[in-house]
Amino acid sequence: MSYISLPESKELDFVAIGRLCIDLNANEIHRPMEETMTFTKYVGGSPANITIGMSRFGLKTAFIGKIANDQMGRFIADYLRRNRIELTNVVTDRTGAVTGLAFTEIKSPTDCSILMYRDNAADLQLTPGEVQEELIAKTKVLLISGTALAKSPSREAVFQALNYAKKHGAVIAFDLDYRPYTWTSPEETAVYYNLAAEKCDIILGTREEFDMMETFEHNPEHSDQVTAGKWFDYSAKIVIIKHGKDGSIAYTQDGADHRAKSFPAKVVKTFGAGDSYAAGFLFGVMQGWTLEKSMEFGSAAACIVISSHSCSDAMPTAAEVHDYIERCNRGEITAS
Amino acid sequence: MSYISLPESKELDFVAIGRLCIDLNANEIHRPMEETMTFTKYVGGSPANITIGMSRFGLKTAFIGKIANDQMGRFIADYLRRNRIELTNVVTDRTGAVTGLAFTEIKSPTDCSILMYRDNAADLQLTPGEVQEELIAKTKVLLISGTALAKSPSREAVFQALNYAKKHGAVIAFDLDYRPYTWTSPEETAVYYNLAAEKCDIILGTREEFDMMETFEHNPEHSDQVTAGKWFDYSAKIVIIKHGKDGSIAYTQDGADHRAKSFPAKVVKTFGAGDSYAAGFLFGVMQGWTLEKSMEFGSAAACIVISSHSCSDAMPTAAEVHDYIERCNRGEITAS
Amino acid sequence: MSYISLPESKELDFVAIGRLCIDLNANEIHRPMEETMTFTKYVGGSPANITIGMSRFGLKTAFIGKIANDQMGRFIADYLRRNRIELTNVVTDRTGAVTGLAFTEIKSPTDCSILMYRDNAADLQLTPGEVQEELIAKTKVLLISGTALAKSPSREAVFQALNYAKKHGAVIAFDLDYRPYTWTSPEETAVYYNLAAEKCDIILGTREEFDMMETFEHNPEHSDQVTAGKWFDYSAKIVIIKHGKDGSIAYTQDGADHRAKSFPAKVVKTFGAGDSYAAGFLFGVMQGWTLEKSMEFGSAAACIVISSHSCSDAMPTAAEVHDYIERCNRGEITAS
Amino acid sequence: MSYISLPESKELDFVAIGRLCIDLNANEIHRPMEETMTFTKYVGGSPANITIGMSRFGLKTAFIGKIANDQMGRFIADYLRRNRIELTNVVTDRTGAVTGLAFTEIKSPTDCSILMYRDNAADLQLTPGEVQEELIAKTKVLLISGTALAKSPSREAVFQALNYAKKHGAVIAFDLDYRPYTWTSPEETAVYYNLAAEKCDIILGTREEFDMMETFEHNPEHSDQVTAGKWFDYSAKIVIIKHGKDGSIAYTQDGADHRAKSFPAKVVKTFGAGDSYAAGFLFGVMQGWTLEKSMEFGSAAACIVISSHSCSDAMPTAAEVHDYIERCNRGEITAS
Repeated sequence: MSYISLPESKELDFVAIGRLCIDLNANEIHRPMEETMTFTKYVGGSPANITIGMSRFGLKTAFIGKIANDQMGRFIADYLRRNRIELTNVVTDRTGAVTGLAFTEIKSPTDCSILMYRDNAADLQLTPGEVQEELIAKTKVLLISGTALAKSPSREAVFQALNYAKKHGAVIAFDLDYRPYTWTSPEETAVYYNLAAEKCDIILGTREEFDMMETFEHNPEHSDQVTAGKWFDYSAKIVIIKHGKDGSIAYTQDGADHRAKSFPAKVVKTFGAGDSYAAGFLFGVMQGWTLEKSMEFGSAAACIVISSHSCSDAMPTAAEVHDYIERCNRGEITAS
Repeated sequence: MSYISLPESKELDFVAIGRLCIDLNANEIHRPMEETMTFTKYVGGSPANITIGMSRFGLKTAFIGKIANDQMGRFIADYLRRNRIELTNVVTDRTGAVTGLAFTEIKSPTDCSILMYRDNAADLQLTPGEVQEELIAKTKVLLISGTALAKSPSREAVFQALNYAKKHGAVIAFDLDYRPYTWTSPEETAVYYNLAAEKCDIILGTREEFDMMETFEHNPEHSDQVTAGKWFDYSAKIVIIKHGKDGSIAYTQDGADHRAKSFPAKVVKTFGAGDSYAAGFLFGVMQGWTLEKSMEFGSAAACIVISSHSCSDAMPTAAEVHDYIERCNRGEITAS
Repeated sequence: MSYISLPESKELDFVAIGRLCIDLNANEIHRPMEETMTFTKYVGGSPANITIGMSRFGLKTAFIGKIANDQMGRFIADYLRRNRIELTNVVTDRTGAVTGLAFTEIKSPTDCSILMYRDNAADLQLTPGEVQEELIAKTKVLLISGTALAKSPSREAVFQALNYAKKHGAVIAFDLDYRPYTWTSPEETAVYYNLAAEKCDIILGTREEFDMMETFEHNPEHSDQVTAGKWFDYSAKIVIIKHGKDGSIAYTQDGADHRAKSFPAKVVKTFGAGDSYAAGFLFGVMQGWTLEKSMEFGSAAACIVISSHSCSDAMPTAAEVHDYIERCNRGEITAS
Repeated sequence: MSYISLPESKELDFVAIGRLCIDLNANEIHRPMEETMTFTKYVGGSPANITIGMSRFGLKTAFIGKIANDQMGRFIADYLRRNRIELTNVVTDRTGAVTGLAFTEIKSPTDCSILMYRDNAADLQLTPGEVQEELIAKTKVLLISGTALAKSPSREAVFQALNYAKKHGAVIAFDLDYRPYTWTSPEETAVYYNLAAEKCDIILGTREEFDMMETFEHNPEHSDQVTAGKWFDYSAKIVIIKHGKDGSIAYTQDGADHRAKSFPAKVVKTFGAGDSYAAGFLFGVMQGWTLEKSMEFGSAAACIVISSHSCSDAMPTAAEVHDYIERCNRGEITAS
């Protein structure tokens, strides 16, 4: 059964709005960042990574965002262009904003952290007037990302993008991607996450992210059913709640829950797992696959990304994901 | 026919959230403010005025807001208390914010202006966590006012109040009350006004205010039907669009439009007309009167306020409004 | 002996830089402000009051400051003009700043307080580039006031004015006028007060103000001699330290201290005492009077101001001050 | 002849106050930064580099500054400690500020630029109350750097450090190090640079930096004599004005000017030239060398730094500088 019906005859498959930034990944890993001497530069930001993934899977994609008017901004635009992502709505900032940075620290495969530079970030300067209605009018799916809600005017740009998507019938996916910095308070976060989620067809997040959204609500047992049920009263068709090591569960309007098996991986770091999972899952849903198969595809894509050094650059093709699944099925890949 | 059905057996009739401030009205009028030497102090702010009006009509009312921790704040609390408005959710600011001020200039009955002090205003410091769910749970009607959306955290407090009102079945009225200061841009304003209006049962505003809300839309002829029609697709039951001298029109979901006759008045100044109209109209609707009768009652209340020096203090009782209507009907009152 | 030698053949006697604002004085006095219903509007701000005083004494004066582009700003300009104060360097703000306000509360002659509105105040928007060197070049005395140091760019404007005054040989007087609001911390205040005081010939302040300036210093007994002595190592010729009821003491480079007798007054409120004292004292010094006689003249001017309702408007003429002194000497005036 | 007399029997030779940050130097050079993929991390910031240089020359040094409470901050502290710089007055920020960053772009030896991250930088959060008087009391020389004047509260911390240095007789050197970002306007910069320079014994800067300081003055021919002469009227003993390729000139109170020959170098990039020059020159002055010999030593130190990849890490020992001079004198080093 298909939970999502995509609009037909749209020119673009997938458009994302939100954070575009730079990852500076430690080259010398398995040590604290104090002892890291060199860093490699990659394009980063959750919606950027997902869009790169979608493009590698062969979809027609575009991005809505804002880049700094500097070398970092131009590097990002260049990288997206080389990945065949349409840039007509990637605006260049003129206020002197800078590119957001994320320095990664990889102490061990399971002990990773990020040092963020988000002050005066260009991506948060996107205004609602800069969002192109005609771009959203021609896409099947719009992905929004929670970090873009963290500050004005980007916050308003996301709400305006949601308006256009509703008006033109795009399926809307919401990757919660909650990062506490930049937000003033958890209360503020909860208010805007809820306002946005009301308008979305697919919502993906961790149990902790949904807990934050329930700041003003009563779900003392952190019940997934209570959480998902609320959103089915609005627009949602699928709510995916991720439970870390215990796997993800997709809840659907019909009261069902869906799980997929997981795969082994030689883990380098955990960054990028969520982005590649989201890309793989959404790709599967767009192909008309079952939720179980879509989730499996997302999991395998995530395994590939966490086995390598970067997030964006490691995004696999569909063939690579299928191949990974087969090799796992043949027992050729084991956990690290 | 009744367009609004009020929840039954609620303890309170009417709760408003938003701006509480001080009006400093010129005592020497019909001259520029440069030549005004003394000012009289009144409680002000559109939702405060409406609540005072509702209380004078005999309803049980409460207010949700924030006051400065100073003499002006204490004066406001005192005045509301003396008008029998419940203050359990009027919070005192602890950050050093000040009371918003509005100096009025009355050059002539038709040439009035306001000099606003809205920097660091206490009312805009209300947080979503300070809004009491139990208060909203026990009211029949919640009124929100656009100025409270102008800045965080008050903006989030209004959205949280809307959530509680929806959850507990209160009828929600939205008095647009758009004031350009405090807002960053018309685009920002349009985004939040629209997000709020989606959740409201009754929306009242001027044609210009609705035009601002349509910043991102296409209504080149400023058609009231197009404007009102949009909101009936969300939650609205009644949309009132005010056309200044040409009177107000109430649009309803059934496609009808409703007008009321107007009354003559000896106009001192135009301030407070909208607030007293809103109070009178909402009171009528809550009594189960026809829209026409409710609008008439609102118009007469407005006539009384614009014939006197203040806004809040001049709010009439229901008996005074009925009397005004009768005297007009008897031809005892003529325009100035 | 003359402690100050004025430059000769300068066109102007006295120029002040700094705060220009509006006082809103309670009409109903001897009660808390909560119970005050009407206020009278006056020009206010310590350096403005002093300049008005100087002009009433018959000196040629000018002002350097910034006013809001509104009715309050125009009222201020008008009032200064009518008091024959040159306005060529009173700039109109174009950023939307407002006029600073001071609501006065007079509970009793000895229990007075002020409710200040200083957020986004126009006077603090004066930039160093707006200060006219040619105006300072032609004045005998420049007065700076501490509140103008509270925030950029006004802070830099004052330092630039000091540079011009040093360059062109004007005598510089510093009225400390410390008001805690607007300042970030007492440390910040101490740093800039000290930097400014180093360049001044005459420094007037209360013991408490000098204590604040000694935040980073060691004067555990709050010794006036220690305090004054420090400034004689820089540019100071006269340091006046005010001890409230115990009177003021003028310290001079030669190690002497000077006191004047005080006068009785029928006190209405204490506001404006410091400004009228400063005006009277500086006027005396500029006439070549002894410090004792100058201080006496300042005290009598202060008595006149605290016996009336306003600060600026009550500033006396020299004849009125002399008359007040004579009447006191004849025993015609007794304390309230 | 000695222009500077150092205080005797002080425990420390040299203390600097100001910017501590991270340089991220492009590993792949001679290309635009868009094409740089990896960066190497170094401690940076002009006063930090100079202090590292002084320490390598064998002097006893300390630093006054503020570091972020993160991996970058700890790396900086660690590096300074390993360079035997006393850290008792390097404070850790607790407000969530970040470490300032400087990404370097080396297109060619003569075409280098920097991409700065200075928003919410920890070093600008140093407060005047955090500056330790006892540390400044025991140093012979205090170096201040212009970037620390760019913002409060660091600006006030520098002025307080100057007060302590004056009080305790330290020789004060001012490295202008003007960077336009962070400053609000050139006017603001000029005001504070001048206020600080008035108190300094040695002032080093480029002709362009001195021009900026003369924003409000009249030196239409950009005359070094006019520039230097002004400062001799305050505290200055030596004013060094750098003319890029045309070399530096040291002006002294006696009206003399002093020049040194320059040395050839295999230039990798120009960054760090000023810092190593300042370190070498000040070291020479502190040894009692002639100004010419001191300048020569500074020039040779600069040649060593610009021939290598970093600024801080490339700071030479005195032996290495002497060796460089000798090798130049023997003709063993030629320009690139």
